[in-house]
Amino acid sequence: MNEADTQWMSLALEIAERGAGYVSPNPMVGCVIVSAEGEKIGQGIHERYGQAHAEKNAVDSVSNSELLDGATVYVTLEPCAHHGNTPPCCELLAELPIDRVVVAMEDPTPKVAGKGIQYLRNHNIEVEVGVLKEEAEKLNEFFLHHQRWGRPFVTLKIAQTLDGYIAAPDGDSEWISGQHSRSLVHEWRSRYDAVMVGRNTTLLDNPRLTVRHVEGRQPKRIVIDGPLELPDELNLFTDQYEEKTIVLTHNQKKYREEADPMLNMLKSDYFRGTTLLVDEKDGHTDLGDALKELGKLPVTSVLVEAGQSLASALLRENLVDKVECFIAPKMLGGGARSVLGVGINHMSEIMEFREVEWKQVGDDLLFSGYF
Amino acid sequence: MNEADTQWMSLALEIAERGAGYVSPNPMVGCVIVSAEGEKIGQGIHERYGQAHAEKNAVDSVSNSELLDGATVYVTLEPCAHHGNTPPCCELLAELPIDRVVVAMEDPTPKVAGKGIQYLRNHNIEVEVGVLKEEAEKLNEFFLHHQRWGRPFVTLKIAQTLDGYIAAPDGDSEWISGQHSRSLVHEWRSRYDAVMVGRNTTLLDNPRLTVRHVEGRQPKRIVIDGPLELPDELNLFTDQYEEKTIVLTHNQKKYREEADPMLNMLKSDYFRGTTLLVDEKDGHTDLGDALKELGKLPVTSVLVEAGQSLASALLRENLVDKVECFIAPKMLGGGARSVLGVGINHMSEIMEFREVEWKQVGDDLLFSGYF
Ligand SMILES: NC(=O)c1ccc[n+]([C@@H]2O[C@H](COP(=O)([O-])OP(=O)(O)OC[C@H]3O[C@@H](n4cnc5c(N)ncnc54)[C@H](OP(=O)(O)O)[C@@H]3O)[C@@H](O)[C@H]2O)c1
Ligand SMILES: NC(=O)c1ccc[n+]([C@@H]2O[C@H](COP(=O)([O-])OP(=O)(O)OC[C@H]3O[C@@H](n4cnc5c(N)ncnc54)[C@H](OP(=O)(O)O)[C@@H]3O)[C@@H](O)[C@H]2O)c1
Repeated sequence: MNEADTQWMSLALEIAERGAGYVSPNPMVGCVIVSAEGEKIGQGIHERYGQAHAEKNAVDSVSNSELLDGATVYVTLEPCAHHGNTPPCCELLAELPIDRVVVAMEDPTPKVAGKGIQYLRNHNIEVEVGVLKEEAEKLNEFFLHHQRWGRPFVTLKIAQTLDGYIAAPDGDSEWISGQHSRSLVHEWRSRYDAVMVGRNTTLLDNPRLTVRHVEGRQPKRIVIDGPLELPDELNLFTDQYEEKTIVLTHNQKKYREEADPMLNMLKSDYFRGTTLLVDEKDGHTDLGDALKELGKLPVTSVLVEAGQSLASALLRENLVDKVECFIAPKMLGGGARSVLGVGINHMSEIMEFREVEWKQVGDDLLFSGYF
Repeated sequence: MNEADTQWMSLALEIAERGAGYVSPNPMVGCVIVSAEGEKIGQGIHERYGQAHAEKNAVDSVSNSELLDGATVYVTLEPCAHHGNTPPCCELLAELPIDRVVVAMEDPTPKVAGKGIQYLRNHNIEVEVGVLKEEAEKLNEFFLHHQRWGRPFVTLKIAQTLDGYIAAPDGDSEWISGQHSRSLVHEWRSRYDAVMVGRNTTLLDNPRLTVRHVEGRQPKRIVIDGPLELPDELNLFTDQYEEKTIVLTHNQKKYREEADPMLNMLKSDYFRGTTLLVDEKDGHTDLGDALKELGKLPVTSVLVEAGQSLASALLRENLVDKVECFIAPKMLGGGARSVLGVGINHMSEIMEFREVEWKQVGDDLLFSGYF
């Protein structure tokens, strides 16, 4: 690993990120091609799910193919080795007169898992693996988490006052955090596969959960509605993104009666989204089972915009991977708390975070922490 | 106001601060003397209460008095005009062959209030007032607050988890914040006239409230003990700083029986601190009256290391001037909340802060906000 390698890989990672939100459930991938003379002669990314891979786009972008002689290809993920929507990238690269391929990380997908690298080596191309590996893993943390555990990466978003309240005593929870924080949440929505809310939040706030303050891809919208009793006319069930709404219920009877797709379509105003039946636990939706079912769709990442009950239930069940907590410079001294009842009694059981970051966003403070 | 003026005044403010904690109830003052050629020829600060003023120390520090000819004196506060522990500084300066005095702010003390400046002008010295006035006011915010309102500047210090808890469900509150935060609190203790705690905190934690992790002046220690029932053997009543402890009670009967200084001294192990009788309000110590009485001692600044009850009571009564809130990257999901019950019901009544600062301290986040 030399300085040029990390520099070009850095660029590849940077451009890869432009696919955020659009390529899921695939990983984001970036590719940069550098000539024997050390000049960048091409670059490309995986732009949208189902479309060309980064390597193909990068190769296509090279205008003078003679420059490929002795070139180095930097790619943020091991080139694929299987015939999917596109032919295997390792074959594409092996046909070129290049000398070297630098890979940030192996592809953990069983169909690839080292085979792409082996194929290149078998075709006399020098392959270096592991340049900016950590950064590459961070870039695709949702993808990797889903690959490994089969369930989505779960981020719990909280917007609270300094003293830990998410709603005033009279129940009002609007406008705790500032404009900058709200825009950032919209940006996140465009990067996560799905946004999740609980039944009470849906009923009380009638949220839209769309990307408005910024440009970006609309996420799926997951509503937990154990009893399947939320009124049909709520925004999530009627607006232009209706098809992106996924309702999770544990009410078998109602699910059979109301969510059957065949019966449903006989109605003139049937719900065009998805309803999933999941297990029940202590009278509520079993959140572990819910995430397992979502993982199968697949949903690789979920941003939970939770009230107290949902946040606390997820934390209690150890289902949260990351917390993003906006703290507004305000105090309420009462109302709904951000988190209440996660089974801790003594200081020795306190929940600590692994990686922690504090960042100012407008007048608010954003805490980000991994469990 | 020119660039040299702000630069020299900046230095005067910087050195003035070294008197923090030691000069109270006087303000911190710094003085820098600059020759006609623009060289610094002397500097001094007010170092300790009862000792020489900054101007006197600065003048004494000039080794070659010929250089005072045409010099400029920078002083962070209007030179005094009254005979106190020391002769008036305006007279001292007026006797020198200096040309100009630059003053950051007027002294609001009725005995001075412009008279020092007038005296200098009457003696043909050019006086400029207002250079770095805001900074000078900030430096002496405790002093100015006490001058204006007669009661101490009150800072509420809280150490809480991300989700707003100051103690675990079993009551344990130790070690929520990290080592860096705790050291910073010790530094604050050395700068505030007094540290204040409530009865429950005193009983449960038996705190010492001394300056340990850093060098510095020991503060007075104020304990609110409405019923005057705290056991005699607690640290605050028996350790080497016993005389710095002030107990506030509203129990007239017990106060007369137990706190009478004459009766007290007949006991072999009498309490060598101070006991103050203040008003009662709703069964508790009247905090407004308590601060008024403290202001008379005088105590110009109080750092409240409060539990939930004391913090909430002070906030409810609008007696808090500044909040310093450490947020540890941890969650408890239960236990004592930092603030509970301040009379707010609706979002429109939310408490907002004027000046706000977020700063990382070790792994913790420190929020500082003025009301
Ligand atoms: N400031 C913010 O960041 C923010 C964000 C969102 C909401 N809020 C506010 O929070 C309030 C609503 O919060 P909420 O706590 O009442 O409801 P909620 O967040 O909507 O959570 C309720 C959901 O949690 C599910 N759940 C799963 N396991 C659970 C368990 N063991 N115990 C309890 N619930 C469980 C419930 O499932 P079942 O349906 O199966 O019962 C239900 O759908 C509203 O005032 C809203 O405005 C604030
Ligand atoms: N993490 C932290 O920053 C931190 C700091 C300090 C304490 N703590 C923890 O907090 C807990 C103790 O807190 P606490 O809330 O029980 O007690 P507290 O902070 O000791 O407060 C009780 C005091 O508040 C006074 N007070 C005045 N007006 C009041 C009113 N209207 N209502 C209630 N009290 C009033 C009481 O006066 P009277 O005596 O006249 O009744 C009493 O002396 C302990 O577990 C301690 O370890 C945590």
